[in-house]
Amino acid sequence: MDDQVFHKFPAVYLRDFATAVFMHFGVGAADAALAADVLIKSDLRAIDSHGVARLHTYFEMLELGRINPKPNIKIVREKASVATVDGDNGLGLVVGPKANGIAMDKAERHGSGWISVCNTNHFGFAGYYPLQALERDLIGWAMTNSTKLVAPLWGAERMLGTNPIAIAFPGYKEPPVVIDMATSAVAYGKIEIALRKNQSIPSGWIIDKEGRDTTDPRDMIGGGAQLPLGSNREMGGHKGYGLASMVDILCGVLSGANWGPFAPPFALRQEIPARSVGKGIGHFFGAIEIDGFIDKDEFKKQIDEWIQVFRKTKPAPGTNGPLIPGDPEREAEAIRSKEGIPLLKPVVDDLLDISGKTGIPFKAE
Amino acid sequence: MDDQVFHKFPAVYLRDFATAVFMHFGVGAADAALAADVLIKSDLRAIDSHGVARLHTYFEMLELGRINPKPNIKIVREKASVATVDGDNGLGLVVGPKANGIAMDKAERHGSGWISVCNTNHFGFAGYYPLQALERDLIGWAMTNSTKLVAPLWGAERMLGTNPIAIAFPGYKEPPVVIDMATSAVAYGKIEIALRKNQSIPSGWIIDKEGRDTTDPRDMIGGGAQLPLGSNREMGGHKGYGLASMVDILCGVLSGANWGPFAPPFALRQEIPARSVGKGIGHFFGAIEIDGFIDKDEFKKQIDEWIQVFRKTKPAPGTNGPLIPGDPEREAEAIRSKEGIPLLKPVVDDLLDISGKTGIPFKAE
Repeated sequence: MDDQVFHKFPAVYLRDFATAVFMHFGVGAADAALAADVLIKSDLRAIDSHGVARLHTYFEMLELGRINPKPNIKIVREKASVATVDGDNGLGLVVGPKANGIAMDKAERHGSGWISVCNTNHFGFAGYYPLQALERDLIGWAMTNSTKLVAPLWGAERMLGTNPIAIAFPGYKEPPVVIDMATSAVAYGKIEIALRKNQSIPSGWIIDKEGRDTTDPRDMIGGGAQLPLGSNREMGGHKGYGLASMVDILCGVLSGANWGPFAPPFALRQEIPARSVGKGIGHFFGAIEIDGFIDKDEFKKQIDEWIQVFRKTKPAPGTNGPLIPGDPEREAEAIRSKEGIPLLKPVVDDLLDISGKTGIPFKAE
Repeated sequence: MDDQVFHKFPAVYLRDFATAVFMHFGVGAADAALAADVLIKSDLRAIDSHGVARLHTYFEMLELGRINPKPNIKIVREKASVATVDGDNGLGLVVGPKANGIAMDKAERHGSGWISVCNTNHFGFAGYYPLQALERDLIGWAMTNSTKLVAPLWGAERMLGTNPIAIAFPGYKEPPVVIDMATSAVAYGKIEIALRKNQSIPSGWIIDKEGRDTTDPRDMIGGGAQLPLGSNREMGGHKGYGLASMVDILCGVLSGANWGPFAPPFALRQEIPARSVGKGIGHFFGAIEIDGFIDKDEFKKQIDEWIQVFRKTKPAPGTNGPLIPGDPEREAEAIRSKEGIPLLKPVVDDLLDISGKTGIPFKAE
């Protein structure tokens, strides 16, 4: 991929540009900065698929009025430790952090907080939300449903999104454990890369439009579907399907959002489902106050030990041993914070296009 | 397997026998009945590995005084929606349902309840606990850590248990969605079956003691390890490892129980870890009051729709289409409730052995 890198950009430069783009469409200054922060944090952590590479899609959705730039985000139902939030069709990048904030407030008051969100849109990378919780010394969870891409085990069509689950635990002197994973066997971006490079993909990633296992990535755009984590019955595909269903129900059904194949698409080019069973897509956030369970410092010191013990696991042949969840992203963030964020030429072209259409300056070098 | 079935037993007969066995060791009548109910529910739902097949192990642990028959189960730390429970080294089959009861009580008062449990033992099949929650019209979660069997991705030794996750959602006229899954690629029982039948197993289930992929089930008992869901890097093994870690930290670290490779073994024959970092093993229970999020009937009717839509998924070739999570277990329960629970000869022999040693009558036919 590196040969395609056009230029490296300081995070602050991209953040300011994205903030200005959101403001151009009437998003308030604070909300625009928040949305830009979610995008750029993703780029910093090398989750390139969820960073400014998606700004053009948000741009299109805002330009066509498909997303509300000034949502009235409100709690529509509530008990002490739980609530449903209606995102008023705002940017998920704004609705998400605010709903997560409500979860964290509840955790600090009642020991835990759990927020299901309807009438929202794509919220960026799921790991952003538990990272917010870590700043307040809480354990944080996030899930979201999304446009259909994944077949249930033994199905031959797209019925579920890649429905990620993220959770993070703070360490004391060690860095936090940050788990952030889609419930599909593989990220969609890996299929796109194989397509672009004209390479075959491993069996177990996707099926073709008839539901047959295939190693040709073109079968995905030809009406195929991704497989859930575990891929097939023998290797536990029913488990990935179960996890994706859990996410879909907690985010979609519990909040009154669209669920399963009815989740509206993130991008303009994707087909809009003929039927609607709720409002927008759905998220689910959780926050846990550690002190409600155990002394906070004692917990964090045990997490340090957990990390140290797992780092010392005997390595499998040809590896340096297990990573701690969150290691690769944290290491990328340390490098990219200093050296800048590398963007591929097509992404830079998209940003230049936005610049041309909005008049917001963007220098590609 | 059917050729090895010795006899079918009515559920009530096995439940009464197991109750009497627990009482023989000083477990109170109500607790003994509860523990027996967890075991027999597992057999009814065809999760044979977690039913009366394990009674002999509980028998041995109680006989040697390794489990406290009369635990003083208590809340050691608490906020409105969360608590840590110390199981006083009781049977997990008793501590589990009681801690789950506290989670459900909190859910009814505060919208949700989350209980981490230390100083406990094997709690049977994880699905029992969300089934309890369904009886009170709640969404229920359960997790537990357990004796090390699974290697982290890129590790060459056992560091984590098969650490299951279970969650259930009530339907209106449709049956509930019940997800109950280990975070390993496959159940340990499937490796045992291959061993007994002298068959090879699929690549991706286990590694040998050097950390190499193997299809010989004997490598597991020769010091190998199971692989996490996803198996290898390409197919998402880091995700199964992440999920198993999440379960280990919520159950073990958060409660003050032993975590990772230090979780004490369930059975006598298994090695006791040289180091202890907490008390017993750990569980984590959650309960959610649906009405805190959305009208309960509206939710349940949407679950019905969800089930109906997913049942209509276009089937993959050679299948009848996707199952709804919980279908196979519910169907087994309907049959076994009528026809009895089939037990293999070695299991019946174990029960006869217990009968001989305790004087509690057991008729094998």
